[in-house]
Amino acid sequence: MIDLTRRSATALAAAVNQRETSAEAVMAETLARIEAYDVVQPQIWIARTAPEALIARAQAIDARVAAGERLPLAGVPFAVKDNIDVAGLATTAACPAFAYEPAQSATVVARLEAAGAICVGKTNLDQFATGLVGTRSPFGIPRNASNLAYVSGGSSSGSSIAVAAGLVPFALGTDTAGSGRVPAAFNHLIGFKPTKGRWSTAGLVPACRTIDCISVFTDDTADARLIDGIVAGYDAADPWSKPLADRAIGRKTIGVPRRDQRLWFGDAESEFLYDGALDVLAGLADVVEIDFAPLKEAAQLLYGGPWVAERTAALSALLADNPEAIDPTVREVVSPGLDVGAVDLFKGIYRLAELKREADAQWQQIDALAFPTTGTAYRVNELLAAPVALNSNLGAYTNFVNLLDMAALAVPAGQRANATGFGVTFIGPADSDRALLDLADAYLAAANLPPPPPLDLEGKMQTVKLAVVGAHLKDMPLHWQLTSREATFVEATTTAPSYKLYAMADSVPPKPALVHAEDGAAIAVEIYELDVAAFGSFTVEVPAPLAIGTVTLADGSSVKGFVAEPRAIVGAEDITALGGWRAYVARGA
Amino acid sequence: MIDLTRRSATALAAAVNQRETSAEAVMAETLARIEAYDVVQPQIWIARTAPEALIARAQAIDARVAAGERLPLAGVPFAVKDNIDVAGLATTAACPAFAYEPAQSATVVARLEAAGAICVGKTNLDQFATGLVGTRSPFGIPRNASNLAYVSGGSSSGSSIAVAAGLVPFALGTDTAGSGRVPAAFNHLIGFKPTKGRWSTAGLVPACRTIDCISVFTDDTADARLIDGIVAGYDAADPWSKPLADRAIGRKTIGVPRRDQRLWFGDAESEFLYDGALDVLAGLADVVEIDFAPLKEAAQLLYGGPWVAERTAALSALLADNPEAIDPTVREVVSPGLDVGAVDLFKGIYRLAELKREADAQWQQIDALAFPTTGTAYRVNELLAAPVALNSNLGAYTNFVNLLDMAALAVPAGQRANATGFGVTFIGPADSDRALLDLADAYLAAANLPPPPPLDLEGKMQTVKLAVVGAHLKDMPLHWQLTSREATFVEATTTAPSYKLYAMADSVPPKPALVHAEDGAAIAVEIYELDVAAFGSFTVEVPAPLAIGTVTLADGSSVKGFVAEPRAIVGAEDITALGGWRAYVARGA
Repeated sequence: MIDLTRRSATALAAAVNQRETSAEAVMAETLARIEAYDVVQPQIWIARTAPEALIARAQAIDARVAAGERLPLAGVPFAVKDNIDVAGLATTAACPAFAYEPAQSATVVARLEAAGAICVGKTNLDQFATGLVGTRSPFGIPRNASNLAYVSGGSSSGSSIAVAAGLVPFALGTDTAGSGRVPAAFNHLIGFKPTKGRWSTAGLVPACRTIDCISVFTDDTADARLIDGIVAGYDAADPWSKPLADRAIGRKTIGVPRRDQRLWFGDAESEFLYDGALDVLAGLADVVEIDFAPLKEAAQLLYGGPWVAERTAALSALLADNPEAIDPTVREVVSPGLDVGAVDLFKGIYRLAELKREADAQWQQIDALAFPTTGTAYRVNELLAAPVALNSNLGAYTNFVNLLDMAALAVPAGQRANATGFGVTFIGPADSDRALLDLADAYLAAANLPPPPPLDLEGKMQTVKLAVVGAHLKDMPLHWQLTSREATFVEATTTAPSYKLYAMADSVPPKPALVHAEDGAAIAVEIYELDVAAFGSFTVEVPAPLAIGTVTLADGSSVKGFVAEPRAIVGAEDITALGGWRAYVARGA
Repeated sequence: MIDLTRRSATALAAAVNQRETSAEAVMAETLARIEAYDVVQPQIWIARTAPEALIARAQAIDARVAAGERLPLAGVPFAVKDNIDVAGLATTAACPAFAYEPAQSATVVARLEAAGAICVGKTNLDQFATGLVGTRSPFGIPRNASNLAYVSGGSSSGSSIAVAAGLVPFALGTDTAGSGRVPAAFNHLIGFKPTKGRWSTAGLVPACRTIDCISVFTDDTADARLIDGIVAGYDAADPWSKPLADRAIGRKTIGVPRRDQRLWFGDAESEFLYDGALDVLAGLADVVEIDFAPLKEAAQLLYGGPWVAERTAALSALLADNPEAIDPTVREVVSPGLDVGAVDLFKGIYRLAELKREADAQWQQIDALAFPTTGTAYRVNELLAAPVALNSNLGAYTNFVNLLDMAALAVPAGQRANATGFGVTFIGPADSDRALLDLADAYLAAANLPPPPPLDLEGKMQTVKLAVVGAHLKDMPLHWQLTSREATFVEATTTAPSYKLYAMADSVPPKPALVHAEDGAAIAVEIYELDVAAFGSFTVEVPAPLAIGTVTLADGSSVKGFVAEPRAIVGAEDITALGGWRAYVARGA
């Protein structure tokens, strides 16, 4: 297999400018990488420029360099999310019926190309940039680079994977509600979402025009800084563009959500990683808990309030003429906007102005926020089963940022056992972009994180969540069957209140049987996550009358878990009233 | 009659601070003036503070001055439009059903009082600040200070008259679509509408919250500058407040509407006065014609587009619970906002952003705009007959300003023969407030305008518009009957296309007869305006079979004019095909 180690745009450009390599060699290598990764995930791309054309462009760069020019992105290949115009390629926004041929490239693309960068293609996305998951596209579902069972995150799904898989050193995404940050977290990347108006949005298919931003994925902050230096600046073609400004922020006080307001959606591993990140930050600044409520209320305006009509506005022609062309989940999300009145929108605008004032006041007390980028990561199958609710969970820490005119920078902050990335996002007031990059440098230097885990090229890292209820619980006699398989603890919870628990007769070591019963109760369980192969070998060893079936949990979700054949309760003692096996063991048989 | 000569806030405060007079003496004089003017227009007030309380407050100011304090507005009386909170007085917004007792004064009022000013009362307004006329209030119709037959302008009707009539040196108005400028023009005042966010709107009843401004009427720019210095500045209680900024603007290039885009609504006198103002400006700067179209399109969004729903939002509770409590015209204006969708509002927001970008680009070419404040002035009776259409005409040059985040300063620029004021408004980009005051100083110094005409205290200046069609036309034998009565030429126009014109038989001097006929044509007429008394004496002299009746004009409006009894056409020649009497005379009988 070809080497897919990530490359630095800064280093590549320097090498081309110094003629240590050529743009043509860089492009040839890039084409080989892309071809190799096509075996794994061709669906991260919607369109690519023909290889000959790319080589020709690289040769043109080499000729300029040979003639003495120095180009800040000399020969650096990059990818562009397919809701941003690139001349010569159709813009689809992941909706074939919407596709058009742009007359010219978006301002940001033009600026990158003027600096010597070469666009290799257009990447897949949640249709119309509506989603944080990557599952909402007729061009296929990009999957997490480190674990193909998991979502890539979205909506900038393809761009994040193109960088994470080492195909291109940087890729443009977009970010309205977190689309440039969530995939960065999941794929161990830097995700830089500039202040609205810092990077032109001319040539961007609107999602919510008043808050849409173009963003970038890179492997390190140096590349994000390099790209920002080339792209940032006023553009008269974008009504939201504004003159370049850089606001210094202090680094004395970092705000984090109050512990009781943090949202982990049952993912104790994320909570653990976040606490670790806060320990690192505590060495750099005072970490203070803030009230998350006003930010959450602002976030609520985006999908739970009148701003949903802004997405509807972007799609109103298609909704009227050809609604079937829209992804069903996207349609489900945007259609309610048709019924929102302008009066309610004005009231939302007023409330947002008040919340923005509260948020602004907070910058008097704290210099920046360091929030989890997401509270958890989901498997593709989980997402497909509950596409709106789980998507919404992923936006819990990201949705408010653009509405409140903040800058954000998502950085890696650890890895889950399943290899998906956990991330922290630094958030600051408008125009704090460069200051956030400096803050991230300080954090990353102190955190000393391990390199990203290896790419998942074969789906081997697929994992399964398993509910155990008896002898496999922590400190119980068979727990070693999990630890020996490198299962990781996810959480302690209970079943839905519809199970009975029996202590089986003559079982050695003593074991319970969990039996579904409408008049049952909630039974204590522990959830572990383990590799599918390990899960298979574990299941092989489960003795009758026990079996591995499906267990419904208190939150309504389902996981694999111990169930029992009917014969298991013959002669067994009903211990449902005890609420769990641990209580039974404590009581004594 | 007591002296109602306008007083300067700057001079009064200086005199009180220097103990040349006392705040108590100033207040006693003020109360006497108010009482005197109550005989003319008590309806300019909605509520007043009791005289004893005002005297007590003045005495308290005197005590502080005696103790050595210097207060920038020591003892200066002022009035407040009744949509701005003043502690101790109900806020009605000219809607009794809406009235409430505010817990505290609006920030601007509190700052003025802290500077030593004393609020004498709350003034009448177009209900909920919705109107530019002054006719939309259950508390009565404030009339033009110089001619009681004419509207005061609105919505800050009462405040403008309180200053114009010399009762108080300054009064607070508000301005969303021109409410702080139109009444300034009509009453020979300075009307200062600061940049949105410069003066706090905390404590203001919203009309369109995102663009509402508090404004001030004064007799001169020095007072406007003084008030701004006291009131301007950040207020955390107003989500739209912003840190104080002063933007310098050049004075080399002044933009004016292209001549073919100017709107005079048939008022040639206004056009003449504007040309005179431009002659003055041409001595100060390059006067260049600009394209008015993008500004007009922005203005259209306010009432013809989705922003109407912002007024609806302000009244949604009252509209739902007690619609009859709302002035019928105001209700007619705001009700359509209930049917505007959020999707259309978002589209309007986008269009406005584009138009704002165009307007901003214009500031690269020109330093400020000098627009007519209004194209014409209307009589109260005209307004009541067409309350929405004529109101809309008055906003033609004002509506776009707040939507496009501009500052504006209305200044006097001449007087019509009917004594109503014609005004020019200087308009600049956000934060150009102080620069506009400087520009106005230069203009006013160069213009050397006459003082405001005398107050109309008895309605004696009521005028009538008269259409003449034959021997009274300019240069015709009976024209002297108009000139001898000081009639002023308004315009040359035609009737509606539903008249026939006959050359009467045996008439000396030759005279035509204008006869209404559905199959008729448009007949050339000239419109003159004259005092009602003069009109009466003129009518006395009209011989049979002619009479003074009502003539419908090409624009659909009606004026008094020459009509004829049926007997007039006996033996007469139908000369309708000639289109007018002047053509008949030229042809020869």
